[in-house]
Amino acid sequence: MAVLAAGTLALDDVVTDEGSVSGVPGGSALYFTAAASLFTVVRLVGIIGDDFPREELDFLRERSVNLDNLTQLQGEKTFRWGARYETDMNIRRPFRRELNVSEHFDPILDDAGRNADIVFLANLEPAHQLRVLDQMTAPRFRALDTMECYIRDDPDGLKKVIERCELLFVNDSEARIITGEVNLLKAARKLLGMGPRYVLLKKGDHGSMLVAPDFTFAAPAYPVETVVDPTGAGDSFAGGVMGYLAREESCGPDDLKKAVVYGSVAASFCVEDFSIRKLKKITLADIEARMALFRSMTTW
Amino acid sequence: MAVLAAGTLALDDVVTDEGSVSGVPGGSALYFTAAASLFTVVRLVGIIGDDFPREELDFLRERSVNLDNLTQLQGEKTFRWGARYETDMNIRRPFRRELNVSEHFDPILDDAGRNADIVFLANLEPAHQLRVLDQMTAPRFRALDTMECYIRDDPDGLKKVIERCELLFVNDSEARIITGEVNLLKAARKLLGMGPRYVLLKKGDHGSMLVAPDFTFAAPAYPVETVVDPTGAGDSFAGGVMGYLAREESCGPDDLKKAVVYGSVAASFCVEDFSIRKLKKITLADIEARMALFRSMTTW
Repeated sequence: MAVLAAGTLALDDVVTDEGSVSGVPGGSALYFTAAASLFTVVRLVGIIGDDFPREELDFLRERSVNLDNLTQLQGEKTFRWGARYETDMNIRRPFRRELNVSEHFDPILDDAGRNADIVFLANLEPAHQLRVLDQMTAPRFRALDTMECYIRDDPDGLKKVIERCELLFVNDSEARIITGEVNLLKAARKLLGMGPRYVLLKKGDHGSMLVAPDFTFAAPAYPVETVVDPTGAGDSFAGGVMGYLAREESCGPDDLKKAVVYGSVAASFCVEDFSIRKLKKITLADIEARMALFRSMTTW
Repeated sequence: MAVLAAGTLALDDVVTDEGSVSGVPGGSALYFTAAASLFTVVRLVGIIGDDFPREELDFLRERSVNLDNLTQLQGEKTFRWGARYETDMNIRRPFRRELNVSEHFDPILDDAGRNADIVFLANLEPAHQLRVLDQMTAPRFRALDTMECYIRDDPDGLKKVIERCELLFVNDSEARIITGEVNLLKAARKLLGMGPRYVLLKKGDHGSMLVAPDFTFAAPAYPVETVVDPTGAGDSFAGGVMGYLAREESCGPDDLKKAVVYGSVAASFCVEDFSIRKLKKITLADIEARMALFRSMTTW
């Protein structure tokens, strides 16, 4: 089963204690796709300028990613984003944000896109997320991610998207901002009251927690000894989760729990290098090998 | 198998968003013992004044805690400690610390204490921890906990204690301060280089990670919806870990992994009320029931 993924594609400047890169491929939809395409066909919805590297598009095609809903505008620049991470990589200082071609984004889906069974709305303006949802004919499972700026700038739009999705990906600080609850379990229950069937709380290197009305599932993060660049960790986490669900063609509680662990493993590879470099190098066999390690690290 | 536990006994003033208490029983050794005594006999080493509530000593006797190494000085006051927690309970603002009777502490063990197989050195000046270790005849398993003030005030003493123990309990920020490493896995490996066979990293409501030279074990915290008072969470965690190990009379890797989960469950009860109130009310059956819930929350 294919997964439709809408989000940003970007060129990033990133500085961490491990080094720095400039103009490397990034964006929520790209990180998501680099992980999800290990599992299943991804239909990518987004917009890029003519400066987006051709070899990255070649990589996506090699991974059987469908690019029919990806718009490339000639004479325009790709969305540009830059940030510097502190030694404690939970602290990020953005220093650059140029919308460029993103200002012209208007996601129009083709027939195959509209008929997709599984949809992932990556970090993107809620209005664009809604625009995608409005075009879907009969999706079986809809998931969204969001970030602080959209919570602040368009809370009403965001609420409408949350209400219409089965699964909400949200990090701990975002969950607290949206609900006003410090306790994450209480925050998750409030978020469930907004409509979704499942809330998946991302806690970075502290793991994740899946909360439903009738069960809770908690998983530690896969321990990574050298984090080179945490950019895209949450997006590749979602890529592992949704890619696995799409491959299994099933989104029940047991599938979701296993999907959460696949997500953790995908994110653990993502952070081991800048951009999507590591996610490009690995195969599903690498993911499965780390899944086995994860099991041995958590079994008692 | 009995566990010998040395640490502080205190009267605490605690303020949280859920309420406040004044002069309630606390201290690292008391929280540890309230949890560990659910599993096994604890030989408690510490000092109190004549203001320490008689009913708390009665509770300890009911739990078969051995008080032969507990000194009560007449005409002296018990160690007094107070703190206020922010809404984000990871932030604690201490406002009171009166050593009182603790200034006269000189732990002299009786024969049964010296011959204990398992020792836990709770939060306490490293000099006192060493004094206890020096008296032990042939302990099979030694563990210590520590806190920031001892890392700062007596780093050399602390190093000597760490070197002589099999298991180091340490929270994430302490591990970073001792080693200068931000990454917790790297920090744990440096700590292993200081002598212990196992390092058990406590991450509060983010769970814990057990690191040995040849394996890593990670567990989420048991999710608690209403945290009333986080005081003693780390001590009761250690109580669950060491109590289980002592009961099993075995301290191998598989025992330790399971013990970590028992520790998480013990801590989850501790934080549900002020002082040791909840730990006093529960039985081993409550612990086992929550262990089963924990398994269902983490199995995939």
